[in-house]
Amino acid sequence: MKQKIGFMGMGIMGSAMSGNLLKAAYPVTVYNRSREKAESLVKKGAILAPHPKGLAENSEIIITMVTGPEAINALLWGTDGAAEAFNASKIFINMSSVSPLFTRELAAGLAATGVTFIDAPVSGTKQPAEQGTLVILPSGPKDKIAELEPLFLAMGKKVVYCGDVGQGSMMKMFINLLVGVMMEGLAEVVNFGRLGGLSMEAMLETLFAGAMNSPMFQVKAPNLEKQEYPAAFPLKHLTKDLKFVLDTAYDLKAPVPVAQTLLHLFEVGMAQGWGDEDISAIARVMEHLSPKKA
Amino acid sequence: MKQKIGFMGMGIMGSAMSGNLLKAAYPVTVYNRSREKAESLVKKGAILAPHPKGLAENSEIIITMVTGPEAINALLWGTDGAAEAFNASKIFINMSSVSPLFTRELAAGLAATGVTFIDAPVSGTKQPAEQGTLVILPSGPKDKIAELEPLFLAMGKKVVYCGDVGQGSMMKMFINLLVGVMMEGLAEVVNFGRLGGLSMEAMLETLFAGAMNSPMFQVKAPNLEKQEYPAAFPLKHLTKDLKFVLDTAYDLKAPVPVAQTLLHLFEVGMAQGWGDEDISAIARVMEHLSPKKA
Amino acid sequence: MKQKIGFMGMGIMGSAMSGNLLKAAYPVTVYNRSREKAESLVKKGAILAPHPKGLAENSEIIITMVTGPEAINALLWGTDGAAEAFNASKIFINMSSVSPLFTRELAAGLAATGVTFIDAPVSGTKQPAEQGTLVILPSGPKDKIAELEPLFLAMGKKVVYCGDVGQGSMMKMFINLLVGVMMEGLAEVVNFGRLGGLSMEAMLETLFAGAMNSPMFQVKAPNLEKQEYPAAFPLKHLTKDLKFVLDTAYDLKAPVPVAQTLLHLFEVGMAQGWGDEDISAIARVMEHLSPKKA
Amino acid sequence: MKQKIGFMGMGIMGSAMSGNLLKAAYPVTVYNRSREKAESLVKKGAILAPHPKGLAENSEIIITMVTGPEAINALLWGTDGAAEAFNASKIFINMSSVSPLFTRELAAGLAATGVTFIDAPVSGTKQPAEQGTLVILPSGPKDKIAELEPLFLAMGKKVVYCGDVGQGSMMKMFINLLVGVMMEGLAEVVNFGRLGGLSMEAMLETLFAGAMNSPMFQVKAPNLEKQEYPAAFPLKHLTKDLKFVLDTAYDLKAPVPVAQTLLHLFEVGMAQGWGDEDISAIARVMEHLSPKKA
Repeated sequence: MKQKIGFMGMGIMGSAMSGNLLKAAYPVTVYNRSREKAESLVKKGAILAPHPKGLAENSEIIITMVTGPEAINALLWGTDGAAEAFNASKIFINMSSVSPLFTRELAAGLAATGVTFIDAPVSGTKQPAEQGTLVILPSGPKDKIAELEPLFLAMGKKVVYCGDVGQGSMMKMFINLLVGVMMEGLAEVVNFGRLGGLSMEAMLETLFAGAMNSPMFQVKAPNLEKQEYPAAFPLKHLTKDLKFVLDTAYDLKAPVPVAQTLLHLFEVGMAQGWGDEDISAIARVMEHLSPKKA
Repeated sequence: MKQKIGFMGMGIMGSAMSGNLLKAAYPVTVYNRSREKAESLVKKGAILAPHPKGLAENSEIIITMVTGPEAINALLWGTDGAAEAFNASKIFINMSSVSPLFTRELAAGLAATGVTFIDAPVSGTKQPAEQGTLVILPSGPKDKIAELEPLFLAMGKKVVYCGDVGQGSMMKMFINLLVGVMMEGLAEVVNFGRLGGLSMEAMLETLFAGAMNSPMFQVKAPNLEKQEYPAAFPLKHLTKDLKFVLDTAYDLKAPVPVAQTLLHLFEVGMAQGWGDEDISAIARVMEHLSPKKA
Repeated sequence: MKQKIGFMGMGIMGSAMSGNLLKAAYPVTVYNRSREKAESLVKKGAILAPHPKGLAENSEIIITMVTGPEAINALLWGTDGAAEAFNASKIFINMSSVSPLFTRELAAGLAATGVTFIDAPVSGTKQPAEQGTLVILPSGPKDKIAELEPLFLAMGKKVVYCGDVGQGSMMKMFINLLVGVMMEGLAEVVNFGRLGGLSMEAMLETLFAGAMNSPMFQVKAPNLEKQEYPAAFPLKHLTKDLKFVLDTAYDLKAPVPVAQTLLHLFEVGMAQGWGDEDISAIARVMEHLSPKKA
Repeated sequence: MKQKIGFMGMGIMGSAMSGNLLKAAYPVTVYNRSREKAESLVKKGAILAPHPKGLAENSEIIITMVTGPEAINALLWGTDGAAEAFNASKIFINMSSVSPLFTRELAAGLAATGVTFIDAPVSGTKQPAEQGTLVILPSGPKDKIAELEPLFLAMGKKVVYCGDVGQGSMMKMFINLLVGVMMEGLAEVVNFGRLGGLSMEAMLETLFAGAMNSPMFQVKAPNLEKQEYPAAFPLKHLTKDLKFVLDTAYDLKAPVPVAQTLLHLFEVGMAQGWGDEDISAIARVMEHLSPKKA
């Protein structure tokens, strides 16, 4: 008999991931702050909880996949918060992107409830979430994580154990910083090439034939070609992640000169009102800094 | 009967590329400033020219694959320079990395000789050069370039036509800027992860499983793991290419904020004396900027 | 009769400022976490409080001048904390550098005590503190601040009213960002000039004769000349202030591209162990990034 | 009897400087590519030369004060160029901002004419040029420069000998990099303060009262306050100077991380079409990167 799952957060990622849990025959209870977003999961067989506490009472494993610290805190510690129903027989897994510092503080805050806390962010955005090909990055008690492998593999294709609790968040920042570097890098070189008279077609042909090709470029380059940026991974979320990276780097005294430039550029995108577009809209920032077209 | 090729520049790239021309049964004459480097090609069947002019007299197609503008100018216009033997029946192909501006100036300088000038840099470094899997980026007269396709495919796996002469150099800078972004990006995130307590093994497992994976990372990440940087693409050459990128961007008023940070970091590597190591030695710069190990 | 002052924080700044209050005939009670640092003030006539609460009980106006949020929180809310003795008849003035966000949170936390809270950081470091020539940057209730002008002028030469509580901290970040820009700028240009063969003497003669001359350069340039950096304003404190600037800029979506580069460079200085030297030791970072001397 | 001066370049700087030579009773012949700009000097008593060669024939000391290398080359080596009339009895002084590399190349090019070549750029812009309070930065033969001191002091208030020819240009870049740092720094902090709710009045009051005050801020801050940027030192010229700085730093392997960020930002200003405004228009770039006003 599969464990009863409570899944909170029905955004792009959470709805796809909980959908895959349903497909894998897990009994799933869902909750979302704005109820409408949970409807499609209910149609697929999920139970709708009235509030986080109700969800936690009804579940053995509680998962959060939301936009950040504030949302997690509200779900756990707000009115009828999930933490009220936590106890030593339950497992709580945060899969949202947060900083290692927040994760360690969260672990400290949860200690009194007795719940087993696992920090398990994911590498991958919309498409891998839908296809169940995420890379899952758990940290916390190694034996419990080993037992949860079937659950993780219902949502992803691979599980990488990252260490003590907080290190999953660290790994997530490691990978999202690289997402930022490569996304901005692509936008910067394509904008440079265009201003230098290269055709988009020739640039992409060269890019895809060489050693720099990557699945991410395959997915994002067409956005740059069409100059359309439908949100698979919203720019505002990566901006937030880059801020976590810089806060963590500050504490570690880790040099991150390119990460700093990236945060500046993504913030320019935020300031221009492009936060809800895809991260590939960083291409719009490049244009904003370029000569106006005649 | 295949065209007679004169190949100047027997460095990492040139010796591999001219070797592949020999394998493809082209008659090849070679020249290198320091004669020893040409010996291995002679053993494989190449003729050794006494000087660039002699090489050009003996060839229908003259190719240069050297370190930059100074070397090209010396080969063409120095004592017994190749340009003295150029005429309307010959083709000159520069495959070295240079700026578009230099290429256009070179085209102007060669006009009087009547030679057909083609600008054809390559994407790919040591291994693709040896395996004949380079991407060739020619620009210049389209019909001539079409006729040269068999020659290019003896050295590479793909030919991307880039436009008027100079645009091959532009494409090369487009691609090498991306090389710089991804190489520094990898070094920056790995250094960040290490300082944050992640294991190299877990970082690479995560990287290789996700959408950011690329052939380049497969090749370069092991260098970072071993902390050994044998030169496939010397750091000093990419530094020079980044300078060409910035000079070109300045003329185009193209915003290249990350490229500027990259040049700064690669110059720090040069200043520390790491120019002859591989571009992956940018990881040493990251360590140089990090807390000293206890 | 002058108001009874309680002054907490006997570092470089606090000991000089409270010394000036004594000179101006204010009755001053002092407290410092490590007692020895308070001794010299006691010799000058200050009363030593056993703990922050005792200091607050014995004072009408309580001032903190410490290294940041953690120290302030410990003094106010720790065991025998000052806040226990706060009430509507007392005034609390924080003169330490903190972020506007922290100041606003502090104001909210103090509201229940009824204390009048004024946020009054200062522009100027060791020498102006000793000479009583600081610029005082108060924010909070305008009428109360007007009444406190004699007190402020016992420590400084000028008072600039900055607005609602928190805006003093904002002004402090405004000015300290400029300190960072000019200090790094001086170090960067001097290092550049030296590598380019200019003599220090000629550089400073040119600098001091031109429109860029400033009192700060007069004070800091000799450090660069002697390559000695005795702490007037420790590098670690400006590093912390720059982090506050970047956190605030992030919330405001304010572009601070140079501030980001500065934080990176000052963090390199921290990583190398130069945090206790003066901010002018940023010159050592420039050398660390430069070619090694032959 | 004072030496006969030939002055080429009647821009903002050149017309003010040659005007001061006239005031000091030097006989002055002038030339400018567009003749109209020379008219006002002729009204003040200057002789108008028909072309650079004519000017040089008629002068003992020939001065250039133009926009850069291209303009200098055209005046010296173009049709009826000044260099045709150079000989061992004449002195040529370039006071324009150029790179040390260009200056050394120029010295080599002029050697055959026998002319004494002095490189003497200036620190100061419009107002000091008009008031004769420039700082003159000569390099070249020390004895000749000593003899020219009265001439230099007719245009400036101070002469700083910089070393061998080329070092004057190096000093000019040293000082103009600091101009760039301080100008961008002022714009960045003022924009940050505004977004954070500070009044312009309070910011400037704080700035002018503190250790960061400088004559330059006194002159430029009012532009930021009025948001009007009449050209005293055109943005396009400082952009060019920053490019010289970066080219020189590249050759020296000198770390100039902030200079790179500056060039990026000034280039954004160029791309937006603000090159003819004052350098203080970098404030417009800051706004361009900021949230749009509601």
